[in-house]
Amino acid sequence: MPLQIGLLAFPGVQQLDLTAPYEVFASLPDATVHIVAEELDPVRSATGLILMPTTRRADCPALDVVCVPGGVGVNALMRDEAWLAFLRSLAETARYVTSVCTGALVLGAAGLLRGVRATTHWAAHDLLAAFGALPIAERVVRDGRFLTGGGVTAGIDFALTLYAELAGQPAAQAAQLALEYAPAPPFKAGTPEAVDPAVLAAARSRLRASRAEREAIVEALTGQSVPRSQW
Amino acid sequence: MPLQIGLLAFPGVQQLDLTAPYEVFASLPDATVHIVAEELDPVRSATGLILMPTTRRADCPALDVVCVPGGVGVNALMRDEAWLAFLRSLAETARYVTSVCTGALVLGAAGLLRGVRATTHWAAHDLLAAFGALPIAERVVRDGRFLTGGGVTAGIDFALTLYAELAGQPAAQAAQLALEYAPAPPFKAGTPEAVDPAVLAAARSRLRASRAEREAIVEALTGQSVPRSQW
Repeated sequence: MPLQIGLLAFPGVQQLDLTAPYEVFASLPDATVHIVAEELDPVRSATGLILMPTTRRADCPALDVVCVPGGVGVNALMRDEAWLAFLRSLAETARYVTSVCTGALVLGAAGLLRGVRATTHWAAHDLLAAFGALPIAERVVRDGRFLTGGGVTAGIDFALTLYAELAGQPAAQAAQLALEYAPAPPFKAGTPEAVDPAVLAAARSRLRASRAEREAIVEALTGQSVPRSQW
Repeated sequence: MPLQIGLLAFPGVQQLDLTAPYEVFASLPDATVHIVAEELDPVRSATGLILMPTTRRADCPALDVVCVPGGVGVNALMRDEAWLAFLRSLAETARYVTSVCTGALVLGAAGLLRGVRATTHWAAHDLLAAFGALPIAERVVRDGRFLTGGGVTAGIDFALTLYAELAGQPAAQAAQLALEYAPAPPFKAGTPEAVDPAVLAAARSRLRASRAEREAIVEALTGQSVPRSQW
């Protein structure tokens, strides 16, 4: 039986949160990678690219790895009891319960991160605690069978880390080599601490509306007050 | 008129070569990002993920940026005169003619890289010279309006580099921050020089059939002999 890996797809998903791990996992020697959505209809991602699901949620087999990508669409997912119940059900038997970016908020909303060390996109990191998670400021955080990645591009580091656990380090390194993953960012601008205040303000400006909505959702879900961004 | 950016989609494209630049370019302040294919039918990528084109080749407007991703499917593209003529036509007016990964081989086959400094995936780098290109072992190579990236994940570095040219460095840095691109690869395994011989052999093994086919195609197209991989 091949390893069963499922990446969730939903309207407003950040497609790179899904497509980068997909490309890494696709070279696992004996694995089926599912793109799991409510229905098989095309799913419009946050930036417009269309994703085609492979597996309806209702038809999804038990998964060895369940992965929740992030994106503006998690705001709806956090309040979607059908998705949350599905996640809780998968988590009962999954070897790994994982997320990339703000997918961690969905794991939190499903009640799966209580007492779990976890990370998420920098712009949502301070919201994790309301779910009982222990926020860790690292790019990939492992806590038992929970593996969470930071924002968007952390999905590559996350997926290679998990690959090594599933298939061994030499195979993971061969996958990294095939993807020529020797990154050379043109700027030192990947974290809020690294950038000028004006750049941080510009990035926050893009995320402001989604952030404000998230604060209200997390407070409503958890009954906890969360840090107000005042962006 | 928004900036017109086109990413080519074709059967056997390496989807991350396309989806990573797409995600970067999607946040350009005033741009339309096209996924250009022969027809609007779903396109199956090299690892199975389905891409949905937005623009038929025949309906494609003049582009400011044309970008050719790589993947096993370039073997067919290099011999597809309709694609090559289309690329030559776009290149006449494009501000930037670009590629990620082995997309550079298609630019070469279209005759666009003669005398141009360029790069591509490590497993194809030594094939560039047959097209008259000047192979440069760097992750992103700029030569006038030609901008080429190395293998797969180099597409992120490529796209941020181009973003800065199109919209300025502060905006590019804000895009990098939004994608939290502060990479932390779990292994030092992104280049052939960095890995154990056994890991290199495993990566080559995956690429062997495509590489052998490519050697024959490039020789047939150029009349030049190319280095035989003997992998």
